[in-house]
Amino acid sequence: MEEQEATIRNPPSASDEAGPPDASSIWARMAWTHLDAVRKRAPLVQCITNLVSMDIAANVLLASGASPAMIHSINEIQDFTPKADALYINIGTLSAEWVPAMQAAAKAALEANRPWVLDPVAVSASSYRMEACLELVKLRPTVIRGNASEILALSSACRISGAKGVDSAHESIDALDAAKSLAKSSNAVVAVSGAVDFITDGDHVISCSNGVSLMQKITATGCAVTALIAAFVAIDPWNPLKATASALAVFGLAGELGMEMASGPASLRMHMVDWLYRLTESTVATRVRLSERS
Amino acid sequence: MEEQEATIRNPPSASDEAGPPDASSIWARMAWTHLDAVRKRAPLVQCITNLVSMDIAANVLLASGASPAMIHSINEIQDFTPKADALYINIGTLSAEWVPAMQAAAKAALEANRPWVLDPVAVSASSYRMEACLELVKLRPTVIRGNASEILALSSACRISGAKGVDSAHESIDALDAAKSLAKSSNAVVAVSGAVDFITDGDHVISCSNGVSLMQKITATGCAVTALIAAFVAIDPWNPLKATASALAVFGLAGELGMEMASGPASLRMHMVDWLYRLTESTVATRVRLSERS
Amino acid sequence: MEEQEATIRNPPSASDEAGPPDASSIWARMAWTHLDAVRKRAPLVQCITNLVSMDIAANVLLASGASPAMIHSINEIQDFTPKADALYINIGTLSAEWVPAMQAAAKAALEANRPWVLDPVAVSASSYRMEACLELVKLRPTVIRGNASEILALSSACRISGAKGVDSAHESIDALDAAKSLAKSSNAVVAVSGAVDFITDGDHVISCSNGVSLMQKITATGCAVTALIAAFVAIDPWNPLKATASALAVFGLAGELGMEMASGPASLRMHMVDWLYRLTESTVATRVRLSERS
Repeated sequence: MEEQEATIRNPPSASDEAGPPDASSIWARMAWTHLDAVRKRAPLVQCITNLVSMDIAANVLLASGASPAMIHSINEIQDFTPKADALYINIGTLSAEWVPAMQAAAKAALEANRPWVLDPVAVSASSYRMEACLELVKLRPTVIRGNASEILALSSACRISGAKGVDSAHESIDALDAAKSLAKSSNAVVAVSGAVDFITDGDHVISCSNGVSLMQKITATGCAVTALIAAFVAIDPWNPLKATASALAVFGLAGELGMEMASGPASLRMHMVDWLYRLTESTVATRVRLSERS
Repeated sequence: MEEQEATIRNPPSASDEAGPPDASSIWARMAWTHLDAVRKRAPLVQCITNLVSMDIAANVLLASGASPAMIHSINEIQDFTPKADALYINIGTLSAEWVPAMQAAAKAALEANRPWVLDPVAVSASSYRMEACLELVKLRPTVIRGNASEILALSSACRISGAKGVDSAHESIDALDAAKSLAKSSNAVVAVSGAVDFITDGDHVISCSNGVSLMQKITATGCAVTALIAAFVAIDPWNPLKATASALAVFGLAGELGMEMASGPASLRMHMVDWLYRLTESTVATRVRLSERS
Repeated sequence: MEEQEATIRNPPSASDEAGPPDASSIWARMAWTHLDAVRKRAPLVQCITNLVSMDIAANVLLASGASPAMIHSINEIQDFTPKADALYINIGTLSAEWVPAMQAAAKAALEANRPWVLDPVAVSASSYRMEACLELVKLRPTVIRGNASEILALSSACRISGAKGVDSAHESIDALDAAKSLAKSSNAVVAVSGAVDFITDGDHVISCSNGVSLMQKITATGCAVTALIAAFVAIDPWNPLKATASALAVFGLAGELGMEMASGPASLRMHMVDWLYRLTESTVATRVRLSERS
C-alpha cells in the first residue's frame, strides 16, 4: 500500500524537473497514472445499473479504456462477478426483480475481494428505495457516490423533505459532514458531486473542481462517473480515496474540454465522451484540479 | 382558468407594440410562455416509459428545463407519484411486470390530482397491448399522443390491418375524426403526430406545422415529445390542449433548427436536443406555427 | 433462388459498361442492391435485444431504412412475431423473465417461415447464458453473428478460460474453423466480426474488410450490426450468406466514412449512423470490400 502510494506520488520523471513539484501537480499526475493504468489494463467492470444510464455508462467506460459488462441476472452472478475486476451497482431504476441480484453481486464481489461501488440515485424517492439502499450499504461498498441530496438522505437514513427526484437541491459542501459521517459508519469512501466534488474516507477530504454545470443537463452523467470510479478503483483497489478523486477529475476535465466545443447538452455529451478517449498526459497533468482539504 | 388563459394570451409587453398581435403570434407567444415556465419551475416528471426511449426522453426533458425521474417499480408508486408534477406512461415495451405499475401510477396521479399523459406506442401490435392500453385509457389520462395509426387503432379499439410496427402508415389528417371521437369518449386531449400535428379536446382543434420529416428516422422522438407534453401540462394543468400544442411546437421547432445543422438522423438528434436547451424567446415567437382549425 | 441471385449479380446497367465487372465490384453492387431493397421495402424487424443496445440498434435500423419494433413481452409474441419480416434476438442482458420470450419468438418465427438472427453476446460469461444460448441455437437461427471469442465459445459449447466480458480477445481468423463447424452443426450462416469479418455457411466463406477499429469503443456496435443483418436477411431470405455479408460491409463502410469526420468514439457513432442514412450507390459500389475466400 505504501509502495503503491509512492509510485503514484512520484511517477517516473516527475520529481526531478524544475524543483519539487507542487501539491497540485502531484495530484494531477496521480490522475494521469490512474487513467493510464485503466487504458493499459482494461479492467472488466460489471455494471448493474439503471435503464437510463446503460448507454452512456458503457460508452464512458469504453472511451476511458475499461471493459464494461452489463450483466444483471441473478443466474449469472455466481459465475461472472468473480471474473470482474470491479462491480458497479446503481439503484436508479431498481425493481423487485433486480434488487436480489444487486445484493447477490455485492456479496460475490466481497467474497472475491473485488471493489464495488454504489450509486444511491434518488435514494429518498421512496422508502422501498431507501431500504434497498441501506441493505446494500451493509454489504460494504468500497465507494459510494451521490449528489448532496442523496448523500444527506443516505447519511441520515431518513427522507429529505422536498428533495426533487434525482437532481440535487443542495450544494455539495452542505453534505460534507454527512459524507464524513457516512464514510465512517459504512467504512466506504464517499464522494459528493457538485460544483466542487468532495471525496472523503471520513478523515481525509479531497476536493475536485473540474467539471462544468451543463453536465447536469445530460441524463445519467452522475451514473456514468460512478461507473468510471469503479474502473479506477479496479486498477488501484488499495487507494479508493485517490482512485475516486482521479476518476471524478478526469471525467470533469473531459466535460470542460467538451464544453469548449459544445452548443448544448447533447453535443457536450458527445464531445465529453470523445475527450475521455483522447485525453493526453500533458492535458491531464496541467488541467486536473484536485486538492486535499485541510 | 380564465386568468391563466389571459396571462398566456397577453404576456407582458406583447400587446402594445405595432398594432394588435395576429393570431399566429399569440400562439407563438403562448408556446414561449409555456417553455419559459418549464425552465423556471423545473417540473418533476415521473416517466414509466419504454426501454428504447429512456435516454432521449430524459435528455429532452432535461434540455427543456424539466426534471425527469424514471421510476417504474410498483413498490415506489405510492411514495413517489404524488411528489411528481406530472406522470408519463408509454407502453412501447410493456411487459407483465410493468403493466400493474403503470396502472397503479395512473391511479396515484389521479388521486393526487396530477396530470398524466399516455403514449399508446404500437397499440395495435397485439391484443395484449391493446387491452393494457384500454385499461389505462379508463384511468383518465389528461393527454393521449400517438401517430395516426395508433390513434385510429385506439379510437376504434380494434386492430388496423396492415399497420406496421411503431411507425405510422397513415397521415395525421386521416385520424382527426378518430382523435375527436377518442377525446370525447376518454375525456382526454388527443394529439396526432404527423407532417402536421393535430391536437383536439373533441371540440377545438389546434394544428401545428413545426417539425421535419427526418425526425421520424430517430428512434423514440415520438416518445420524447410525449414526455415533453407531460412537462408542459405539469406547468399549465388547466389548459392541457394549449400546453400540448406548445410542447409539440417547441419540439418541432427544435427539430427544424437542428435540421439546419444536421447531416443525418444522428446529428439531427444531437442538434435538436441542443436547440431545446438554447431556444430563445425571439426564435420561439417568430417560428412557432400553431393555429386553430376552424 | 437462382433468379434472385441473378438479379443481384447483374443489376441493371451494371454489366455493359467498360468490360465485365470484376469480382470485387460484383460484391459491392450486391451490397448496394441489398441496402436499396431495405430502404424501399422497410422490413419490420422485431428486436428482443439487450438493454444497452436498444437505442443504437433502433437508430441503425431506422437510418438504414428498416422499421424496428422492440417488443419482448411473451404476451405479444403470438400476435406480433408473424407480422415481422425478421426477428433479432440478442442475449446481452438476458434474464429469467426474457428467455422464455426469446424462445417463443424464435419458435414463432420458424413457424411463420421468417428469418431470425442470433447475437450470442458474451456467451461464455456464465453457464446460464451458455445454456440459454444453446437452446436458442436449437431453434435454428438463420444467422449467428458474434466476435471470435463468442463464436469459439459457442462452437465448442464450453467456456473459453480468460475470455473478457463482451469484448473479443481473439482475432476473427482464429475462429474461422469454429465458425464453419458451428455453421454445419446449426445449419445457420455464421459471421465472425473482427478486423476482417468472416461469413460462412460451412462451405463458402466471404470476408469483409470494411470497418475501423474505433467502432469497438462504441458500446453495442456489434449488437447494432446484427440487427442490421436481420433487416438485410428480411429482404433476401433465401441468401442469408450474401445478405449478412452485405450488412456487415455497409455497416463497416458507414464506420469508415464516419471515421473521416470523428474525433473520438461518440462522434464516430453519430457520423456512422448519419452515413448509414446517406450512403449512395456510387459510394457503396466503390468502397465495399467483400470477397470470397477460396
